[in-house]
Amino acid sequence: MRGKEVTATYLIETPYPLERAAAIMAGEQSTGTFIAVPGETDELKELHAAKVLAIEPIEESITPTLPGVYLTKEMNNPVYRRAIVRIRFPLHNFGPSLPNLLSTIAGNLYELREFSGLRLMDIELPSEFANRYPGPKFGIAGTRELAGVHDRPLIGTIIKPSIGLPLDEYGPLVRMLAEAGLDFIKDDELCGNPPYAPFEQRVKTVMTEIERVADRTGKKLMYAFNITGDIDEMKRNHDIVYEAGGTCVMVCVNSVGFAGVSHLRGYTELPVHGHRTQWGAMSRCPLLGMSFTAYQKLCRIAGVDHLHTNGLNSKFAESNESVSQSIRDCLQPMFGGYQAMPVLSSAQWAGSAIPTYQSVGTLDVIHLAGGGILAHPDGVAAGVRSMQLGWEAAVQGVELEKFAESHPELQAAIRVFGS
Amino acid sequence: MRGKEVTATYLIETPYPLERAAAIMAGEQSTGTFIAVPGETDELKELHAAKVLAIEPIEESITPTLPGVYLTKEMNNPVYRRAIVRIRFPLHNFGPSLPNLLSTIAGNLYELREFSGLRLMDIELPSEFANRYPGPKFGIAGTRELAGVHDRPLIGTIIKPSIGLPLDEYGPLVRMLAEAGLDFIKDDELCGNPPYAPFEQRVKTVMTEIERVADRTGKKLMYAFNITGDIDEMKRNHDIVYEAGGTCVMVCVNSVGFAGVSHLRGYTELPVHGHRTQWGAMSRCPLLGMSFTAYQKLCRIAGVDHLHTNGLNSKFAESNESVSQSIRDCLQPMFGGYQAMPVLSSAQWAGSAIPTYQSVGTLDVIHLAGGGILAHPDGVAAGVRSMQLGWEAAVQGVELEKFAESHPELQAAIRVFGS
Repeated sequence: MRGKEVTATYLIETPYPLERAAAIMAGEQSTGTFIAVPGETDELKELHAAKVLAIEPIEESITPTLPGVYLTKEMNNPVYRRAIVRIRFPLHNFGPSLPNLLSTIAGNLYELREFSGLRLMDIELPSEFANRYPGPKFGIAGTRELAGVHDRPLIGTIIKPSIGLPLDEYGPLVRMLAEAGLDFIKDDELCGNPPYAPFEQRVKTVMTEIERVADRTGKKLMYAFNITGDIDEMKRNHDIVYEAGGTCVMVCVNSVGFAGVSHLRGYTELPVHGHRTQWGAMSRCPLLGMSFTAYQKLCRIAGVDHLHTNGLNSKFAESNESVSQSIRDCLQPMFGGYQAMPVLSSAQWAGSAIPTYQSVGTLDVIHLAGGGILAHPDGVAAGVRSMQLGWEAAVQGVELEKFAESHPELQAAIRVFGS
Repeated sequence: MRGKEVTATYLIETPYPLERAAAIMAGEQSTGTFIAVPGETDELKELHAAKVLAIEPIEESITPTLPGVYLTKEMNNPVYRRAIVRIRFPLHNFGPSLPNLLSTIAGNLYELREFSGLRLMDIELPSEFANRYPGPKFGIAGTRELAGVHDRPLIGTIIKPSIGLPLDEYGPLVRMLAEAGLDFIKDDELCGNPPYAPFEQRVKTVMTEIERVADRTGKKLMYAFNITGDIDEMKRNHDIVYEAGGTCVMVCVNSVGFAGVSHLRGYTELPVHGHRTQWGAMSRCPLLGMSFTAYQKLCRIAGVDHLHTNGLNSKFAESNESVSQSIRDCLQPMFGGYQAMPVLSSAQWAGSAIPTYQSVGTLDVIHLAGGGILAHPDGVAAGVRSMQLGWEAAVQGVELEKFAESHPELQAAIRVFGS
């Protein structure tokens, strides 16, 4: 493994000279200690030290973004410099291990008092990671195959109410949604294996309805059952879904950890739908945590087939520019393949398709709408159809209002959701 | 499980009226959706809605801490109000599941555009969690028993250089450290199962030396082997340590996830030493992520026996006040027991004992020093002795310099490290 490397890119903010700050980062995460110790030979450093590849200053600030910076006595009126720093870590320091990669490229860096901001922006990994971690098992092609949907986005919704729906109401709801022509349903991330609707019974109830509708229509809806839970519980839940004829499992990546997802990838027979709940805690401060570009690579290595990215004009704090970049990130091949299917959601409706398509130019997404489908004034089937029509308009390059003139489902959607 | 609840406390910052902001939080993480949908009955809300228990305004700011807040047209010169908010979640919404607890009490809250800051400060859990998650298996008493150390802190060090030490140098180094009278050694968090020193060989090399010294001296050093890795790899590594006679395994909690730690707790025969690498990413922004008070409770539920807290006057950005609070947090019983042993490290030396003891008043800690022991001018044994002497001075309430008059190991430590 000698000669192979991992390169990590960071955004930093520091009152110290940039060269010194970058050297501290490299030292902390490889061969450094606060007092030189025996055994720390030049040969060892040559083989194992992380190396600063590049430092690109970008801007300065007179106030620190984060508290806790240590200022020396000489630092009167310090300037906080921001820069992009690239650091190269020898792979043979830790091997192609996802957990130990995290300890190395992130590790203690965020706590260093020489920094008032530090964010992991990107990672470049050698093929050893692809050899150890096979990545998304189904990806876009496998998902389309199972869902029977080609040449357009999968149109989906989320079971609402998020929480508390009694088991005896699941069946009729799912039947109605399946009959309405939906391609995809996901559990809410709040609903895993709650006492009021035990997982196994819920799966049976849901799959009975899905199979019945499929028998009649030839179309089998893909339902992402939220198997988020303890490690062994996820395995049991996965098996329950698979044995019941289900075609997708969902997991809250940050609630079970990358290692938990990777373990699931080891045995899954179904696409893994990755929800990123808690993502804001890792990303909302622009000078802390990590960028989605880095995060989604880690998710893909762990084996996620679908990954949530938010949608444009969502109810969340993320900008449309950031959402579009996230969608593009998931579709960028890793190791020559290994794509994840972006999942767009939050305040979505038929009118979301055109700006999304204009921005990212792809149909390889799962497009989820809650109210935008379920609250359509002409019913759920019209809600689903309005979403499909939105994408047809996008692909044809026709304005939404123009396209709606000959499509009443779209007209009604614009009237209710298009304010 | 009806009638049981989880209460979460948050620090929030928002330009919206506090009552409205708190209601949005409760809605997002229980029964809310952006357009009312069928099935969301009053009865369902009554049973499943999260409830705002208290809102305590604390201060205001004219600038937002985090970007991305949505301002309505009426909000000219908005004031960002900070408050402590307590929200109660029905346990039967998710059951006593650690991963699903995270999805509920943290979840999407951090992304809500009505907030310019949101941090989970504390959680109160019903006994159902203790029934499902047995917590630390060894805790303080079990650790002391295995290490044979009573009535004083465990004195430990970290294998340095952090990375790259060849296998043939591990044996002599560990022998020397064991002979010097150390109670505890931990692997560096950067060193898991690296290609240059494969785990199994490393364990055998280390344990051979520890057993040999124990045969001669009667004292068996506790070595925390870093088993951080994929889920199944951790099991293999744990078994290797246990079969080789080892007495502790270490895991980077945030690199394997709480679910990964909890899985380890299910089979461990050894105390679990929890490192919190990447903790800064979750905590360094005061209005994002979570407090250590909440974090360490989650770690204890997952089953961590020892937990890193930093030490006073460390090289990290954390304040001494925060470090002291973290140590106290770990020692605060949960469910009538369930304590974790705090692990103090970073730039520690003999002189760290007095301020630590004055601040937290306990001897139930593992006190780690790297250079502060290994670089002692009179050798490692003198370094170890100086640390013990520091704590003796602390307990006796004698000033360090005064105590050093009759203890040369302490005198030398003060001369070299006490600037």
